[in-house]
Amino acid sequence: MKFARERLIRFSHCDPAGIVYFVHFFDMVGGVVEDWFREAVGLPFNEMHLERRVGFPIVNTGCEFFRPALLGDTLRLELVIAKLGRSSIEFLVTGSVAGEEKFRARHKVALVSLDTFRSLPIPDDMRKRMQAYVA
Amino acid sequence: MKFARERLIRFSHCDPAGIVYFVHFFDMVGGVVEDWFREAVGLPFNEMHLERRVGFPIVNTGCEFFRPALLGDTLRLELVIAKLGRSSIEFLVTGSVAGEEKFRARHKVALVSLDTFRSLPIPDDMRKRMQAYVA
Amino acid sequence: MKFARERLIRFSHCDPAGIVYFVHFFDMVGGVVEDWFREAVGLPFNEMHLERRVGFPIVNTGCEFFRPALLGDTLRLELVIAKLGRSSIEFLVTGSVAGEEKFRARHKVALVSLDTFRSLPIPDDMRKRMQAYVA
Amino acid sequence: MKFARERLIRFSHCDPAGIVYFVHFFDMVGGVVEDWFREAVGLPFNEMHLERRVGFPIVNTGCEFFRPALLGDTLRLELVIAKLGRSSIEFLVTGSVAGEEKFRARHKVALVSLDTFRSLPIPDDMRKRMQAYVA
Repeated sequence: MKFARERLIRFSHCDPAGIVYFVHFFDMVGGVVEDWFREAVGLPFNEMHLERRVGFPIVNTGCEFFRPALLGDTLRLELVIAKLGRSSIEFLVTGSVAGEEKFRARHKVALVSLDTFRSLPIPDDMRKRMQAYVA
Repeated sequence: MKFARERLIRFSHCDPAGIVYFVHFFDMVGGVVEDWFREAVGLPFNEMHLERRVGFPIVNTGCEFFRPALLGDTLRLELVIAKLGRSSIEFLVTGSVAGEEKFRARHKVALVSLDTFRSLPIPDDMRKRMQAYVA
Repeated sequence: MKFARERLIRFSHCDPAGIVYFVHFFDMVGGVVEDWFREAVGLPFNEMHLERRVGFPIVNTGCEFFRPALLGDTLRLELVIAKLGRSSIEFLVTGSVAGEEKFRARHKVALVSLDTFRSLPIPDDMRKRMQAYVA
Repeated sequence: MKFARERLIRFSHCDPAGIVYFVHFFDMVGGVVEDWFREAVGLPFNEMHLERRVGFPIVNTGCEFFRPALLGDTLRLELVIAKLGRSSIEFLVTGSVAGEEKFRARHKVALVSLDTFRSLPIPDDMRKRMQAYVA
């Protein structure tokens, strides 16, 4: 199963070359991961942080850029899980416009307690809802 | 030779956890590469784009995050060239606070003509000034 | 007539106090103006800039902040025109969450030619579609 | 007395028109206010928030834009206090390049307790160091 969201490429995303400044792609990757936690896992970040006192800091992230995206484009973001570890999740997120892939990102996060800052195993209730997105 | 710059971690860089939001680290990587082109290669981006009609779009970039950086930290960014290709440059950029490494990024760019959007070999005058930074 | 759009308050909008960093409100004001041009006036920014060779640079903008917006809030942005001049438009944009007003911005833009950078009167075809939004 | 800082206009500040996107000017205004608290008042934001448990949320801010700033420009930011109230400070911040004023912002903040979120009078030790900057 894929988790997909669309984002309009706005004026504020674009650089003097008229194309998306790369940093905004990373922000969109972070955003679609946040949407996935809220809508697919049922765990909005505010609840996760305040009520469950856990977080998913980023371990590493990387992105290949194939072709520029332009002002006015509708970017389709698709997220799957490349690897679901004991406490880590490695996402694969692609961005495409009209079927043409613009970028492909790997984004790895890992669960920690916000009280001890130590790594935690992903609880079963969360893991169950995540598993549908493992590629 | 290393190219180094310091950046103060500001309020606007920090997220609700009080640490730098990862996207700003990518912006700082892009920024130190821009500084290096201006100060080490002698080629400010405006001159590069307008007068020489070339650019260095990003091919790929990736970053490992070791430890969070905090509001008020002075982040030291260090740039070297991991690989200098025919038309591409692969930078290694590290960010550290008081000697502790916070992140380590790989950032690859490649020279293109802004008129044809085709790949170009890096001209000798540029390459000469770049070579001092090859690790 | 009001032009309204909703925006989810994301992690990346929030500062170490856990509330929206004010700069993002200005970005949202710019964004809803862009949406209005595209959807209400029928003039996406890329068309406006590339085909009609005109732009609407910002003359001034100001905002009062009444109450903070929080991670997870759905912010409702409402735009009306406070004053439609010969070449200028002064927007009133409010942001509210569940009926509570969070901010109120005035945002004035004026039409210029991108070739001469001189002020232009707003053409009748555009003005007609704008008039429905004058408060 | 004026508090002045210089900022290089970077690629990431510029929009498809090749000029600074207005939102970044607000970020620079927020940044120079932060610098002034740290360097002129002797109160870095982290200390202010964590040790003294007070903050200066923004009441309102507004900016007139006179002329665009360009990639590669060195922007000189100058801050004075237009009005120092019992718990509020109204800053006047200008941005200029080579003596030409690009923008002029009014930015009002007011002291609150982070524990009660109620307004507080500015303590005498802070006020004394602020007074030198009243225009």
